[in-house]
Amino acid sequence: MSKLVYSFDEGKTQSKEILGGKGYNLAEMKSLGLPVPDGFTITTTACMNYLNEGEVVTPSLKEEIENAVKDFEERAKKAFNSEDSLLLVSVRSGAKFSMPGMMDTILNLGLNDKNVETLAEKTGDRRFAYDCYRRLLQMFGEVVYKIPMVAFNSYFDRYKEKHNYELDTDIPAEGLEHIVNYFKELYLSEAGKPFPQEPEVQLIESVEAVFKSWNNDRARVYRELNDIPHDIGTGVTVQEMVFGNSGEHSGTGVAFTRNPATGENKLYGEYLINAQGEDVVAGIRTPKEISTLKEKAKDLYDEFVDITKKLEAHYKDMQDIEFTIEDGKLFILQTRNGKRTAKAAVEIATDLVEEGLIKKEEAIMMIEPKSLDQLLHPSFNEKSLESAELITKAGLPASPGAASGKIVFSAEEAKHSAENGEKVILVRPETSPEDIEGMIAAEAIVTTHGGMTSHAAVVARGMGKCCVTGASDLKIDGETRTVTYPGGEIKEGQVISVDGATGKLYLGEVETTANEQSEAFTRLMNWAEEISDMAVRMNAETNDEITAGFDFGAVGIGLVRTEHMFFGEERLVQMRKFIIAETKEERVEALNKILAYQKEDFEKIFRQADDRPVIVRLLDPPLHEFLPQTEKETKEVAETLDITPEFLNRRIRELSEVNPMLGHRGCRLSITYPELTTMQTEAMIEALIKVKDDGIESNLEIMVPLISTFEEFKTLKDVIETRAKELIEASGQTVNYSIGTMIEIPRACFIADKIAKECDFFSFGTNDLTQLTFGFSRDDVGKFIGEYEEKGILENDPFQTIDEAVGELVKMTVEKARSVDPDYKLGVCGELGGDPRSIEFFNEIGMSYVSCSPFRVPGAILASAQSKVKQDV
Amino acid sequence: MSKLVYSFDEGKTQSKEILGGKGYNLAEMKSLGLPVPDGFTITTTACMNYLNEGEVVTPSLKEEIENAVKDFEERAKKAFNSEDSLLLVSVRSGAKFSMPGMMDTILNLGLNDKNVETLAEKTGDRRFAYDCYRRLLQMFGEVVYKIPMVAFNSYFDRYKEKHNYELDTDIPAEGLEHIVNYFKELYLSEAGKPFPQEPEVQLIESVEAVFKSWNNDRARVYRELNDIPHDIGTGVTVQEMVFGNSGEHSGTGVAFTRNPATGENKLYGEYLINAQGEDVVAGIRTPKEISTLKEKAKDLYDEFVDITKKLEAHYKDMQDIEFTIEDGKLFILQTRNGKRTAKAAVEIATDLVEEGLIKKEEAIMMIEPKSLDQLLHPSFNEKSLESAELITKAGLPASPGAASGKIVFSAEEAKHSAENGEKVILVRPETSPEDIEGMIAAEAIVTTHGGMTSHAAVVARGMGKCCVTGASDLKIDGETRTVTYPGGEIKEGQVISVDGATGKLYLGEVETTANEQSEAFTRLMNWAEEISDMAVRMNAETNDEITAGFDFGAVGIGLVRTEHMFFGEERLVQMRKFIIAETKEERVEALNKILAYQKEDFEKIFRQADDRPVIVRLLDPPLHEFLPQTEKETKEVAETLDITPEFLNRRIRELSEVNPMLGHRGCRLSITYPELTTMQTEAMIEALIKVKDDGIESNLEIMVPLISTFEEFKTLKDVIETRAKELIEASGQTVNYSIGTMIEIPRACFIADKIAKECDFFSFGTNDLTQLTFGFSRDDVGKFIGEYEEKGILENDPFQTIDEAVGELVKMTVEKARSVDPDYKLGVCGELGGDPRSIEFFNEIGMSYVSCSPFRVPGAILASAQSKVKQDV
Repeated sequence: MSKLVYSFDEGKTQSKEILGGKGYNLAEMKSLGLPVPDGFTITTTACMNYLNEGEVVTPSLKEEIENAVKDFEERAKKAFNSEDSLLLVSVRSGAKFSMPGMMDTILNLGLNDKNVETLAEKTGDRRFAYDCYRRLLQMFGEVVYKIPMVAFNSYFDRYKEKHNYELDTDIPAEGLEHIVNYFKELYLSEAGKPFPQEPEVQLIESVEAVFKSWNNDRARVYRELNDIPHDIGTGVTVQEMVFGNSGEHSGTGVAFTRNPATGENKLYGEYLINAQGEDVVAGIRTPKEISTLKEKAKDLYDEFVDITKKLEAHYKDMQDIEFTIEDGKLFILQTRNGKRTAKAAVEIATDLVEEGLIKKEEAIMMIEPKSLDQLLHPSFNEKSLESAELITKAGLPASPGAASGKIVFSAEEAKHSAENGEKVILVRPETSPEDIEGMIAAEAIVTTHGGMTSHAAVVARGMGKCCVTGASDLKIDGETRTVTYPGGEIKEGQVISVDGATGKLYLGEVETTANEQSEAFTRLMNWAEEISDMAVRMNAETNDEITAGFDFGAVGIGLVRTEHMFFGEERLVQMRKFIIAETKEERVEALNKILAYQKEDFEKIFRQADDRPVIVRLLDPPLHEFLPQTEKETKEVAETLDITPEFLNRRIRELSEVNPMLGHRGCRLSITYPELTTMQTEAMIEALIKVKDDGIESNLEIMVPLISTFEEFKTLKDVIETRAKELIEASGQTVNYSIGTMIEIPRACFIADKIAKECDFFSFGTNDLTQLTFGFSRDDVGKFIGEYEEKGILENDPFQTIDEAVGELVKMTVEKARSVDPDYKLGVCGELGGDPRSIEFFNEIGMSYVSCSPFRVPGAILASAQSKVKQDV
Repeated sequence: MSKLVYSFDEGKTQSKEILGGKGYNLAEMKSLGLPVPDGFTITTTACMNYLNEGEVVTPSLKEEIENAVKDFEERAKKAFNSEDSLLLVSVRSGAKFSMPGMMDTILNLGLNDKNVETLAEKTGDRRFAYDCYRRLLQMFGEVVYKIPMVAFNSYFDRYKEKHNYELDTDIPAEGLEHIVNYFKELYLSEAGKPFPQEPEVQLIESVEAVFKSWNNDRARVYRELNDIPHDIGTGVTVQEMVFGNSGEHSGTGVAFTRNPATGENKLYGEYLINAQGEDVVAGIRTPKEISTLKEKAKDLYDEFVDITKKLEAHYKDMQDIEFTIEDGKLFILQTRNGKRTAKAAVEIATDLVEEGLIKKEEAIMMIEPKSLDQLLHPSFNEKSLESAELITKAGLPASPGAASGKIVFSAEEAKHSAENGEKVILVRPETSPEDIEGMIAAEAIVTTHGGMTSHAAVVARGMGKCCVTGASDLKIDGETRTVTYPGGEIKEGQVISVDGATGKLYLGEVETTANEQSEAFTRLMNWAEEISDMAVRMNAETNDEITAGFDFGAVGIGLVRTEHMFFGEERLVQMRKFIIAETKEERVEALNKILAYQKEDFEKIFRQADDRPVIVRLLDPPLHEFLPQTEKETKEVAETLDITPEFLNRRIRELSEVNPMLGHRGCRLSITYPELTTMQTEAMIEALIKVKDDGIESNLEIMVPLISTFEEFKTLKDVIETRAKELIEASGQTVNYSIGTMIEIPRACFIADKIAKECDFFSFGTNDLTQLTFGFSRDDVGKFIGEYEEKGILENDPFQTIDEAVGELVKMTVEKARSVDPDYKLGVCGELGGDPRSIEFFNEIGMSYVSCSPFRVPGAILASAQSKVKQDV
């Protein structure tokens, strides 16, 4: 018959299957020579035997456990019920897979009416001893005898209330004694039997309770949901309790092997003498700096430092270590990879490489790509935040950063105030392309509607500008120019602070801390670029954005949205003339006036990009976005255009759509008005020729949006090629450009092979593709998507992380395109191009590149490198 | 060397590949013993030889042609240039596939300056002779010598203008002589050579021109577009011209073997003595009834009747025959399957089966399924239509039928006027569910926006009510209560007539003809039901619709939309209370008041359906559809609900959506408000129990709309089952129901196998599925879909006939569902369920049933039967 109980020392020969995760880890620490509190593990086999054979502890198992306890007592030089050295233990479950829903822990097992006094004497803390006993009674009662926890808690709370004790720790020893007596009565009334006084009985009954908990409802449901087999059972770990409050030669503390805030390679932590963990948490006593332990107990300190080094070397990462000293003996209770700030993460990872502890590939894997964004933006000073008055936390952290300024309610005001040198926060129900200049002028943008992928969010991220969206408990009153929020009211011109990393808003100005790219950051990014085999481009239009994106390592521009090239005072007037025109001639005349501006825009972009590729998307939004929204504006615009407001209103009505997302936009507009595409082609090709004259070999990729049929693409390709050919021939220059399309409509995915034959490249527009695959409007989904995530109907927001079905569509498209040409150029320029989990998927299916807003480029490069490392494993 | 020229008599041994379509058909008619004008065909091989070998007519081909002409002259007892019996011929191209874009026809070949006089003498019609010559010069000049047709036409038109001749036939013989002379001069000036006088030269040059036309640009493009090989060539057919105007023993006419309007089995047609086809068309002389020919020339008449019988027997269908009598000799010029009315089509097809000429399966294939709809609705009297004043033809024929009435501008007015016994036409920009009662009250519905699948169109078809949508050149002015159209203005209360079969609107009342189901129709439908192996259900809600649908042969209800069960005075008040409620209790209270009504609705439906299956779809539209639209209405509603208009307005704003189609509706509403689903479940299950008490074994299928994730379905299934179980247990009855879902979101298709495991059936909502696959909003697509069809960007409107990519999604879903259960129940309840071509596709991929509006049921049954017949071939 096989062995069913292993001491921690013996455990290193056994697998996680046999010992369970907890037992296995303790055996591992032991094998490293660490002074962990001793104990033993009962195997998962013992558990399954018990469950399969009538739930009886066989005499042989009982004997093995008793022997294990005996050996253990000898090693620990402690014993159950000993008056000199009282042995108390914890009992914990631990299956191969971590499983919430199963019984977790019973502490202080071994205490009884008699030896609780021994403990009190030994620790000199009667209150502590009775508190330990009180907890044992509660845990054992609930877990083993199924007495409802509420029965214990309600009495405990009533007792506090009656005696007017605020904190648990305010209850004196006598009070706890009283409570212990009541709890023992509860055993009789609720379970019909007394609390067992013999530690051996407590232990066996606890082990049985852990075994049984394997089959409780919550555990079964959890296993079903997570595809964990029902027949692998759980291990039971029995471990010695140690007490840091056993006198002046005892203590407890926590330490990080490096500084978790800065990453500095120096032991960082604190401890308390004659105390236990709880005391640190309660904050009643002030702990001491870890280095001062050296003076108190040099040997112990040296031993601890040795151990921290050993642990770092073993786990190859900064460790967060809990320790206790009992009577001058050091115990390591727990070690784990320590949490750290983004800055520290970068420093630690690069240092570990320098120190030869890890390889570059491993360093790459240690950084959360999303955290890099945080590194590149200013943030609020933690201290200042504590005293700041919160306006709301209902907003979404749409674009990171931190900024303060006076609130304004329109783009014009924002522009105007900024020109006067004032810092402003633009607060709007939502934003539209017309607000661009105001958004550029503002320090931060706040909207009361819209989600993480609303216009405001996408544009702000592009600009690297702080933005909070969907702050739904703010009400903007445009007439009185005030914002009301649950706790009060803010008037125009009042200063607020916006935290784009958390979505919170504060009253008044809050101090910020600038974040700069460290040397370690640069080193890390260089490694990531080396390792990654999928390119990262940026979605960018303005010259500042483009500069930032190239600085951050983008290898090209994956998306220039040309919408903004139709805004700006004179252009907008002409665009509106185009829209109200009745003949093609009038339309062309208006467009020709826009042409000169756009040619200049493109020239600047091409000069910045040099020979790096630039994808320019043709005009995408519906025409009504260029028309005025309010009656007042309509009147003004009509005056400018020299038409009646009635005529303009009619045109606005004609262009209004029930579902604009599914309406007359994208390539559909250009099919109706090919002159639009002709003009944009002229602007691009003429700019191309101009910069070529200066020796710049541009790499222009023209992109047609919203294709759903092959014929749409072919029609517009012909329009582009015809005009481009004329201009190039006339110039005598040789310039290069290619023509591709956006894949953002499900139908295009199905005919991708046909399109690919005529088309130079595809770029996936994952926003629209997700909208259409789900039938979710990004603008409206805010009403229920939160609820969907809460209720588990959606695991993730599919606009943030690629959905499985959208992924299938993308994969199918990739396969169809590559069936036409194995090297077909495929990229992603939708929002998901900046999401690490999505990037991993895109890399796996062989995407040529992803493209995202400039500030997300470093994270994307890192995610791409990580996905390569994973593939290579 | 192979033979390159075949007389019609020899042709029957050769294939269509060798002779081309035209030559083959003429040989076939000859082989039936029909007196077709004689001639010969030059093979497609000759054409390809010519094109491949330097475009030279080889001596051997020339010799074969000359011999063929000689043989032909002998058989016809006519000859080129003969003064006694002048031979004139036509030359036509004819490839294996019919090919527009190639040279078509040269008539009267063989005429010249001299023998034109012979012809004049022989026919006694100098005008006719010169007109023949004039046409030859034009056709030959354009086709053979490439003289632009406009050169001929402009002179011809100028000549008419100068002499003030209105019709071509007004020009006297002398005028035509003059024109002929001018045309001959054109040859010299434009082509640099004279018109060839020798018939043999005319013939050879014409043959070469036909050969060359195989390779002209239009023909090549056409072949590329239609996947026709470039190397199969065209045949050239040379046929004797016959003249019905050669004296009193000549004549011409047209006859149908049966009455094309009624289907009556009686020869139907007319003829003119001493005339040619043109004279019949010009309408100068009144033709005579075909039966009167018997008196004039009994032998000829008998011969003709014999031929018509032979032709019907051969082609197994009613024939439309053109004939000419030349000097007492009968010639059949053409025969083809005759066009007929829907009514005649049904009569003829069933008669042909009775007569033993065809099988039932063949009869089924002879009827256009779409035409049945026309049979079931009244239509305007043809004669009355001719004199009616057209308002517009810009509208779409959204739902067939014909009706007249006074125009009204709102649903309330429609209801009010109808209650006063007035016939009204409801004219609206578009309709919404709130307009239902007005739509029921109106004789017809006209909208200025929206397409064939807009709300108005779908609802009207469901009701079998005449409807025209998208009449975009009407402008409704709600204030002055007038409609302006390009030609004038109509005031409220004026009478108009609406033709739902053509989309046209007329001023005043137009007389209608009722259509009733004939005995033949019933017989045909019985055969179709026998043959079809895919079931047809109806989409219907009202009791009238359901009665109609079952009468028309539906085997169940495929879709009960429950939206209308929330309208109606008291219900709407409660629904609005539900919407403005702030707590679940208030919501449930409001719903409970609606419950009683809905239970009654369901009871009626279940009683009508008896044991036939009934799919009920849970509430689908977004909540804002239940709220008032105008300020005035809002004020009234606020008063009724005893709240402030401000509060109501805020709720309206909160519920408004940017893209309602992609918003908070369908199952998403029920996830947020499960009490909605609970109430609908109660209404259905209680009704089920009630009718079961009366012995009715209902077959209820509850359908959850707009599923995109598995969890949505599971959540609502649990809500339904929980409540249903309680009610059924409490009742002590046993009742049956199943729970399925609509597949209308692309994402659902990808996870169909997972859903199928938990779900009893799928019903495809092809409208939404098409909207999402294309990214087209049905409400907005009107702006460009016409242009898309015109420009060939879309072959069909995908909302009318299933698109290839949508089809792939449906097929994939079918396969996934059937992988779970090979008999999985799958249906279609979207608009395409009534479209014959789509029905064929659905049948091929194994759909269990289709469902459509009641009046489309017969067409759907027929289409389903046709598709079965095709599969069995």
